[in-house]
Amino acid sequence: MSTRRGRRRGSKAPPRRDVNYRQLRHPFEPARIWSDDQVQAIHEAALTVLQELGIKVLLPEAREILAKGGAVIRDEDMVFFGRDMVDAALASAPKSFALCGAVAARDLQMELGCLAVQPGAGAPHATDLMRGRRPGSLQDFTEFEQLVQGFDALHMVPPVVEPQDVPPNTRHYAMTRAIMANSDRAPFVFSRGRGQVMDCLEMVRDFRGMSDEDFMADSHVYTIVNTNSRRQIDIPMALGLIDFARHEQMVIVTPFTLMVAMAPITVAGALTLSHAEALAAITLTQLARPGAPVTYGTFTSNVDMKSGAPAFGTPEQVRATIGAGQLARLVGLPWRCAAESAANINDAQAAHETEISAWACMLAGSTIMIHGAGWLEGGLTVSYEKLITDMEMIQTFAELCTPTPAGEAEIGLDTLREVMPGGHFFGAAHTMEHYLTEFYPPLVHDWSNIGTWEERGAQDASTRATAIWQRMLHDFTPPACCNPDRLEGLNAFIAKRSAEGCAHPEG
Amino acid sequence: MSTRRGRRRGSKAPPRRDVNYRQLRHPFEPARIWSDDQVQAIHEAALTVLQELGIKVLLPEAREILAKGGAVIRDEDMVFFGRDMVDAALASAPKSFALCGAVAARDLQMELGCLAVQPGAGAPHATDLMRGRRPGSLQDFTEFEQLVQGFDALHMVPPVVEPQDVPPNTRHYAMTRAIMANSDRAPFVFSRGRGQVMDCLEMVRDFRGMSDEDFMADSHVYTIVNTNSRRQIDIPMALGLIDFARHEQMVIVTPFTLMVAMAPITVAGALTLSHAEALAAITLTQLARPGAPVTYGTFTSNVDMKSGAPAFGTPEQVRATIGAGQLARLVGLPWRCAAESAANINDAQAAHETEISAWACMLAGSTIMIHGAGWLEGGLTVSYEKLITDMEMIQTFAELCTPTPAGEAEIGLDTLREVMPGGHFFGAAHTMEHYLTEFYPPLVHDWSNIGTWEERGAQDASTRATAIWQRMLHDFTPPACCNPDRLEGLNAFIAKRSAEGCAHPEG
Repeated sequence: MSTRRGRRRGSKAPPRRDVNYRQLRHPFEPARIWSDDQVQAIHEAALTVLQELGIKVLLPEAREILAKGGAVIRDEDMVFFGRDMVDAALASAPKSFALCGAVAARDLQMELGCLAVQPGAGAPHATDLMRGRRPGSLQDFTEFEQLVQGFDALHMVPPVVEPQDVPPNTRHYAMTRAIMANSDRAPFVFSRGRGQVMDCLEMVRDFRGMSDEDFMADSHVYTIVNTNSRRQIDIPMALGLIDFARHEQMVIVTPFTLMVAMAPITVAGALTLSHAEALAAITLTQLARPGAPVTYGTFTSNVDMKSGAPAFGTPEQVRATIGAGQLARLVGLPWRCAAESAANINDAQAAHETEISAWACMLAGSTIMIHGAGWLEGGLTVSYEKLITDMEMIQTFAELCTPTPAGEAEIGLDTLREVMPGGHFFGAAHTMEHYLTEFYPPLVHDWSNIGTWEERGAQDASTRATAIWQRMLHDFTPPACCNPDRLEGLNAFIAKRSAEGCAHPEG
Repeated sequence: MSTRRGRRRGSKAPPRRDVNYRQLRHPFEPARIWSDDQVQAIHEAALTVLQELGIKVLLPEAREILAKGGAVIRDEDMVFFGRDMVDAALASAPKSFALCGAVAARDLQMELGCLAVQPGAGAPHATDLMRGRRPGSLQDFTEFEQLVQGFDALHMVPPVVEPQDVPPNTRHYAMTRAIMANSDRAPFVFSRGRGQVMDCLEMVRDFRGMSDEDFMADSHVYTIVNTNSRRQIDIPMALGLIDFARHEQMVIVTPFTLMVAMAPITVAGALTLSHAEALAAITLTQLARPGAPVTYGTFTSNVDMKSGAPAFGTPEQVRATIGAGQLARLVGLPWRCAAESAANINDAQAAHETEISAWACMLAGSTIMIHGAGWLEGGLTVSYEKLITDMEMIQTFAELCTPTPAGEAEIGLDTLREVMPGGHFFGAAHTMEHYLTEFYPPLVHDWSNIGTWEERGAQDASTRATAIWQRMLHDFTPPACCNPDRLEGLNAFIAKRSAEGCAHPEG
C-alpha cells in the first residue's frame, strides 16, 4: 500500500498545453500591394492635402495649439499643416510603448510587429439566438466584458455595445465600473468631452491605487478618435486627442474613410485622405504633449454601389488594409485596422467577411485588430454567438504566432522507422508523448461525422456557440484584481459625482 | 431626330469591369514557418526515409522501372531509393509546363507563382437545401461541371462527386463524356487502371481532334495520385504514375498524411513522410519518362484527438500548408494544396475552416488550390450552396491577384480638392468616372441593412446561394467547344467499347 501510494504521489501530472495567447507577435512578413515609391507618393500627397487643402478643426483650443506649433489658420477654423510640423510629430511620437493592464500578464507592447485583438466594438445593438436583437444595455455591455475576460486572445476590451439604458451623463460611470468589476484589461474610455474623460481617468487611477505620476508613466486606459472624414476634427475628438495626450494615455486615431462616401473611390485616394487625417490628429497629440502615446489607424472599406451601404470583407478592403500597413510602417507607428462584416446574421457570409478582413490584418501586420469577433451589420450589432464562432479564428491566429519546431525530435525519424507501411501512428511512442499537447483543441468547431453529429441534435455552429457563451457567463468569476474594497471606493466616487451633477457629454 | 440618333449611335457603351480571372499569379511573397536550414533538414530526412526505410511498391512493372533506375528492391516489394535517383528526377521534372484547355483562354501554366483553383473534389455524396444529402449521381456530377463552367476563377474541374449510379466499369466513360459535353477545362481522369486511363486519353484526344503527337506535346488531361501513406504505392496509383508520364499528361502527386493516423503527430514529421512519398512518386514518373509533367502535392492536416476523425482549418493544417510550400519551392515544382472543412453543414464553422485553409494556400503560394469551394464533411460531401458561398472568397482572391494602381489619377488630389469638409464623394467627377468599374460586384454577399434584408425575406447566405445555383443551371448553355458532332463520335466510341466489354477498374 505504502509503495503504491508513494508511486502515486511521485507520478507526474499529465503534460498540459503550454500556450500564451496574451502577448502575440506576428509570425509572417507583412504583405505589400505597393512599391516603396508608391507608398512615398501617397505620403507626399497626404502632406500636400495638409498643407494646401487643410483640416477643419472645430475646437478653438486645438487650433491655438496647432497655430502655436506653426500651423496657418484661415477662414476661422481651417488649419494648414506645414511638412515640418508633421515630421516633428512623427519624430516625437513613440514607436513603442506599453498599455498596462491591471496585472503584468495583461500588459501589451504597442509597436510594429506586435498583435493585439479586440472583439467587435461600438455597436448600438446586441443580438443572440436566445433573446433576439435589441438595443444594447448595461447588462449586454457587462456580459461582453465577462466573455472577453474568458479569452486570453482578446487583448483589449473596447465598448462592445452601447448601454443605451443608461443616461448619457452617467453612462461613462457605468461603463468604467463594469470594466473595472469584470476585467483585468486596460479600460477603454470614450472621448465624449473633458468632464467625462477626467472622471474616467480618475476612476481608473484610484481603482488601480496609483499616484498621478505612476498613472502618467504609462498608458492605463485608451480611447479611439475617429476623425470626421472628410478633413474635419470635431470638438469631442479634438478634446480627446489633447486630454489623452496630456495624461500620457493612448489614443488610437482612426479616420473613417469609406470609399465613395467619405473618401475617393480608389484605394490610393481613400488612403491618401485617411493618412492625411491621421497625420493631422497625430500632430495635434504631439503638440499637446511631445512623446504622448498615439496609434496610427485606418478604417477604409468601400460602399455597396447598389445601395451606398458600407461593405466589408471586400477585395478593396483587403487592399486598403495592406496599403495602410505599408503607410504605418513608413511612419513607424503601431497601428490599428479591423476585421468586419456587413452580414445581418451569423451565417456563411458573416464568417467569410470577417475571415477575409481578419486575414488582411494578419497579412498587413496590424498591431491592433479591432472587431475581430462578433461584429455584424457593419457595426450596428455585436452577436454573442458570432463572438464565439469568430474566436476559433482568432485563437488559430494566436496559435500561428508560435514557432513550428522542426528539430530531430519533431522530424521523428525514429517513429517513421517504427511504423511499417500499412501501419498507423495512433499508438506510436512519438504520438503518445505528444498527444495531449500537440494540437490546438477547438472551441466550437465540431469534427464528428455526420451520423454522430445528427445523433447529437444536428446543431449548427451558432447553436453550439450559444451553449458556450451561456456556460461562460454562468461560470464567470471576476479576476482577483477586481478588488471589492476598491469597487466600493468606485461606487462612492460615482455617487459623489452624480450628486454634483455628473459630467455631460460634449460636442 | 437624325442628330439624336447620330448621338446615340456615336455614344460610347458604359465602361465594363475588365477582369481576367482565368490565369492568376499570386500577389504576395510566400510566407515561411521554417528557416532554410530547417527545410533542408526535412528534405534530408525524407531522403533518409527513401534510402533506409524504403517505399512499398505493389506493382511489379513499377518496381522494374525503379530497379532499372538504380533502386534496391528487398523483401519482394520494398523499394529503396538512392539520393542520386531522386536528384536526377528533380532535375528532369519540368519546372513549368502547360495544362491545355479546349480553348487557349483556358490554358494554364503550371509553375511556382501561378494560382489555379479547383472546387471540392472526390466526394461520395452531394447535398443541397432543395434535394438533401444523397449519394452522388451522374446528374450531380454533370451539374457541378456546369456550375464550374460558370466561374472563371475555377480553373480546373476535378471529379466533384462520384457518380455512384453509374457502374464502375462504365463510369469513366460517363464522367469523361459529361466533362467534354459541358466544360472547356482540361478533364480530370481517375487513375483506376490502364484500361480506363487509355480509354479516357483516347476519348479526349479524339474529341479535341488531335494527333498523338499533338496530344503528347502538352498536357490535356490530368490525374491525382494519392500515395497510400505510410510509404506505399498501390497498383492503380503506380499505373497512373507510369501511364500519365508516358503520355506526357500531368500527374498531381498527393500523399495523404493525416497527422497521428497515417503520419507522425508533428507537422515536421508528417511533412517529412509526405515529402518522401512525393519524391518517390515523382521519381517513378521521371524514370517512366524523363521530363514528364508532374506536380508536387501535399494533404496534411491533423485528426481530432477526441474521435480520430480528420480535422481541417486547424492551426496545424495552416502550418503544414506553409511548410509544404517551402518544400515545394526547395524542389522547384508546381504544387498542390487544399482548402478544406470538416463541418457537416454550410454554417459559420464551414466558412471559417474553408477560409482558414484557403488563406493558408494563399500564404503558401500554392500553384493549385483544390477543394476551394463546396467541400464539406472532410470530403464526404460537396454542397451546392457552399460552392456558391465559397466562390465569394475565391473571386476575392482572384481580384487580389491584380495590382492596386496608385498613380496620380488614383491618388486623386483633384477630387480631394473638390470635396470640402462635410461634403461627400458620391457625386464627385472622380467617382462618376470609376463607379461602374472600380469595385468587385458581390456574387452572394448581401450588404443591405437589416430592415431591407428582413423585408426581402431575411434570407441567409445559403438560401440566396440556392437561388444562384438554380439560376445558373437553368441558364446553362455548353461552351462552343462542346461540339455536337464530336459528341456523337464520343458516343460511338463509348458504345463500341461498351460492346467490347468496357474497361474494369484495376487494383
